[in-house]
Amino acid sequence: MAEFPQAIKKLISAFERLPGVGPKSATRLAFYLLNTPQDFIADLSNSILEVKSKVKICSACFGVGESEICGICDDNKRNKKEICVVERSIDVMAIEKMKTFKGVYHVLGGVINPLDHIGPEELKIAELVVKIKNLLTEDEAIEVILATNPTMEGEATALYIKKKLLELDNRGKLLISRIGSGLPMGADLEYADESTLARAMEGRREL
Amino acid sequence: MAEFPQAIKKLISAFERLPGVGPKSATRLAFYLLNTPQDFIADLSNSILEVKSKVKICSACFGVGESEICGICDDNKRNKKEICVVERSIDVMAIEKMKTFKGVYHVLGGVINPLDHIGPEELKIAELVVKIKNLLTEDEAIEVILATNPTMEGEATALYIKKKLLELDNRGKLLISRIGSGLPMGADLEYADESTLARAMEGRREL
Repeated sequence: MAEFPQAIKKLISAFERLPGVGPKSATRLAFYLLNTPQDFIADLSNSILEVKSKVKICSACFGVGESEICGICDDNKRNKKEICVVERSIDVMAIEKMKTFKGVYHVLGGVINPLDHIGPEELKIAELVVKIKNLLTEDEAIEVILATNPTMEGEATALYIKKKLLELDNRGKLLISRIGSGLPMGADLEYADESTLARAMEGRREL
Repeated sequence: MAEFPQAIKKLISAFERLPGVGPKSATRLAFYLLNTPQDFIADLSNSILEVKSKVKICSACFGVGESEICGICDDNKRNKKEICVVERSIDVMAIEKMKTFKGVYHVLGGVINPLDHIGPEELKIAELVVKIKNLLTEDEAIEVILATNPTMEGEATALYIKKKLLELDNRGKLLISRIGSGLPMGADLEYADESTLARAMEGRREL
């Protein structure tokens, strides 16, 4: 049996390591590149190589940015007393797309997940605690919005953080909220799963 | 609204140009690479850059290989009188996986498709005609298996090639066959479409 040329096999196995890319799509991608102009190939190869070196992790919020402090943390018009806690940088961009949130972020880098051996110390929780502690020495009210995903791990992480942060607050200056969950817009009650529906009922609001 | 860092945006738009990769998966891939060890990133970037320069197109069958003549065409144990005509190099590998075909290939580089402005002259059909003409000067029987896909374009291309090749054969030395089509293994008659079922009936064999 003849085999793929070595260079193609190498490319296929590199593609296969990407999330959501199986052997079939990896093969398809590799053969697609074979028939693609060299300038696109050079461009793709370069972009991949540069992304890690050019993108910086913000030392204030741990999100992605182009310098030591990201554009959001560096923006004076942003309310530093309103902190939205998310799992990953990509979640920051999802919230930014709404264009209505005017606070800042704190990126945890994941969620507590004992099955994957990820405990609180693997996440930026200690850094969040220090940040809130410092903010509480000033005299204004602070809101922390826990916007981890509404999954089992996301919920547990939100509860853990809530507990840690409440220990800091002895003057009632700290409001901790959880992002709302319920039926997504455009959904149909008939097809909603029970736990989403239960959340939607719990989270009902007066009209 | 804050935006992705430039390097991430560039990588996302490069990924989006790949087949089957939409904006969401492109973003996901880009963020995945951000959190990946640098050596994998270097490896992926290199493999992409090298694939086009290291892979050669075989001058005999137009399939992919590592030198001027691919491993299959260069193999003396392969029967050069049995030629399987396929659309793309990737189809060669699919047939090779069976491990039972002992002939050689001819890669057309596509199919006749007037909607995409691909006529016979865009494909390696003239080269196939010359190849068969030369083989017919010798005195042995030749089989050409037309293994283009069983799509409208693949069928039309097979018929076109059959007509061209039969013009060459004035001594009855040329057998032209079409790869079988019908129900795939493991299929269920109930769910088969009509044209597949019609093909399966036409292609019935004595047991």
